Amino acid sequence: MVRDPVLVGQRSETVRRANLSAIVRELHANGPLSRSALVARTGLTRTAIRALIGDLVAAGFVREDRPVAIGTPGRPSPLVRLVPGRAVVLAIEIAVDSLAVALVGLGGTVLAIERIDRLRGRTDAESVVADLAAVVARIRAGAPRVGLIGAAAAVAGVVRRSDGFVSTAPNLDWRDEPLGLRLAQVLDLGLPIAVANEADLGALAEHRRGAARGADHVLFVSGDVGVGGGLIVDGVPMTGVAGYGGEIGHLPLNPHGIACGCGSIGCWETEVGAAALLRRAGHPADGGRPEIDVVMREAAEGSPRVLEALDHIGHWLGIGLAGLVNTFNPSLIVLGGLVGRIHPWVAGVVEAELDRRALAAPRGLVRIVPSKLGVDAPLLGAGELAFEPVLADPAILAGPREGLIQLVSA
Amino acid sequence: MVRDPVLVGQRSETVRRANLSAIVRELHANGPLSRSALVARTGLTRTAIRALIGDLVAAGFVREDRPVAIGTPGRPSPLVRLVPGRAVVLAIEIAVDSLAVALVGLGGTVLAIERIDRLRGRTDAESVVADLAAVVARIRAGAPRVGLIGAAAAVAGVVRRSDGFVSTAPNLDWRDEPLGLRLAQVLDLGLPIAVANEADLGALAEHRRGAARGADHVLFVSGDVGVGGGLIVDGVPMTGVAGYGGEIGHLPLNPHGIACGCGSIGCWETEVGAAALLRRAGHPADGGRPEIDVVMREAAEGSPRVLEALDHIGHWLGIGLAGLVNTFNPSLIVLGGLVGRIHPWVAGVVEAELDRRALAAPRGLVRIVPSKLGVDAPLLGAGELAFEPVLADPAILAGPREGLIQLVSA
Repeated sequence: MVRDPVLVGQRSETVRRANLSAIVRELHANGPLSRSALVARTGLTRTAIRALIGDLVAAGFVREDRPVAIGTPGRPSPLVRLVPGRAVVLAIEIAVDSLAVALVGLGGTVLAIERIDRLRGRTDAESVVADLAAVVARIRAGAPRVGLIGAAAAVAGVVRRSDGFVSTAPNLDWRDEPLGLRLAQVLDLGLPIAVANEADLGALAEHRRGAARGADHVLFVSGDVGVGGGLIVDGVPMTGVAGYGGEIGHLPLNPHGIACGCGSIGCWETEVGAAALLRRAGHPADGGRPEIDVVMREAAEGSPRVLEALDHIGHWLGIGLAGLVNTFNPSLIVLGGLVGRIHPWVAGVVEAELDRRALAAPRGLVRIVPSKLGVDAPLLGAGELAFEPVLADPAILAGPREGLIQLVSA
Repeated sequence: MVRDPVLVGQRSETVRRANLSAIVRELHANGPLSRSALVARTGLTRTAIRALIGDLVAAGFVREDRPVAIGTPGRPSPLVRLVPGRAVVLAIEIAVDSLAVALVGLGGTVLAIERIDRLRGRTDAESVVADLAAVVARIRAGAPRVGLIGAAAAVAGVVRRSDGFVSTAPNLDWRDEPLGLRLAQVLDLGLPIAVANEADLGALAEHRRGAARGADHVLFVSGDVGVGGGLIVDGVPMTGVAGYGGEIGHLPLNPHGIACGCGSIGCWETEVGAAALLRRAGHPADGGRPEIDVVMREAAEGSPRVLEALDHIGHWLGIGLAGLVNTFNPSLIVLGGLVGRIHPWVAGVVEAELDRRALAAPRGLVRIVPSKLGVDAPLLGAGELAFEPVLADPAILAGPREGLIQLVSA
């Protein structure tokens, strides 16, 4: 079915802002483009593009390079490129093993990034936010003249999008944690801080800048201690009614299985998460990344026990993916985190399970690939989330004392 | 996350057509509305609404009632209503037990409807399409002056949206059936005939006119011989990359379960479909609707064996729904077909399984209700699908010899 258009009428001011948004989005997602490319991609007329770019140049959003003749007939078209420093966001990630902070400029340019190990003793939300604040302060001190226009955080938990309330984050041992509020109070940025699930943001980043560029029906599976998922449906991130969607690690796939951290039984992550791999490979189940590193070395050396453990994980990975292929009919599955790391070892088993268990029609259309952005996918996704308001309406940066007033009043 | 706007620029002609679409959609979904209500719902100015309605009146799409004073101050606002006969579509359904055809007018008015039992001996696609053609001919003979502007069919199978090719329909015993082509050739309507999965269309109908009106994150579960699903994500039907999405009946929830018609093992529908209920209740598993009717009577009489069978179904229904609540975070689950019919008997068990197995946050936001449109949901959904092109752009009805030329040229 054709996607419904937005169900509201459109006034000329709305249209003008939507057109500015279309141009900024294209440049943000694709990098520098010629005016001709912008005409082709937006469907706007050459005249409209010229006027809108004029306004964006005046507001400092974009600049135009000198035209370069490229050997084709006709007048060369100048390249339009975003000015990364014109709009900078703060991206934060709270993973099970580490904390990370980045400054990201318009167009996705990473201006600064720092990742630290999460210390075993400092796992409560108060300590985590305090540790993050120290990293944020360091990063901002390194870029003293940058003003932030947005901020967002990725967290390994079930998050309400409206206020960043974490209902549960079993692998951080958090419950009912007002993370959004804590971050706002402690970081004191004078900006709203969006908070979202890390797999959802991993999906967003892989879709915009990673392995899923150009694919509009994407399932991102992020495996580590827990297994999370992020979905792109028709080009748009699927969050569910409150942001809780995508918790595919808690599909009950083995009713005769073991207890899950969520309180249920036989959830997918009990069969394909890090603990399952470590246990079957003969390592302590709570060993975390260091033990996983050992397991991966043993796999490379051909340890039969480890290869058997990987086979088991691959088998269950395939079972779950078959159900998800039947449910979502994605064109692409991106495996991130641990399941991306083990992909070379399990690809054969996973594909065979899909052949055996998924319906032939959707199975024939899906490819499975490892993540391209690796460990930073959720962090970069937080950056993308922070940019969302300004991408949707670049004119919101305007204000009585800002240089952008012409974007809204022209 | 805020849903991305459409990523194309907008010219004034595009905007004008989008605004006509916004008005026609509002009237189609909500019935007659005052101009003031249209101003409020579309965000357009009163002046724009007046002009656009003038054009729609001139083209015969809508008419305006005389203003009626309703006791509030100010000038009464006339009611704008669609003219159902201005655009009529043909809706078709191929269910496992029956075939149905309807004529539906703009605004969802059912002008004619007929449902016949599918005969046991005539189950191949050629016979089914021939039987449908006879019903279509009867229905059209009863409304000789109606010109059709669209057509669509719902089928109990895995369908490619682009051409109506049915990859598999296990409960019809079809495989690789070019249904779209067959329907086009035999019915010879001179119109494209869209074909889609019946649960997807049931979801669309329940969303627009049934139990899910106003809910934007909906899971529709349609149970009968097979179990299908339809999803509304952010107000928009989710189809997947080719239209195969929503096959939740083939989530592999019981790896130690029985063989499924799809070739896999332990799919959800092997535990909650009609065959499971009939088998456990001591009836022939392939007894179809007549045997189900007997089982429901026995349940009403308190048969312990039947109540135990319903308990088993409810238990597995709850397990699957828990996984889907975690995956989609819907605000509403609508149970249609058999699972809607047994809802009063299984509601308690289902809710208890959800409490036990779903994550607390999404679980707390979801309600489970039976279907409102009952057996006709997929048929009415086919009607809605057939209207989609004209709702998206009412001006496509215009042409050199039609009365709508002013809609595109004004």
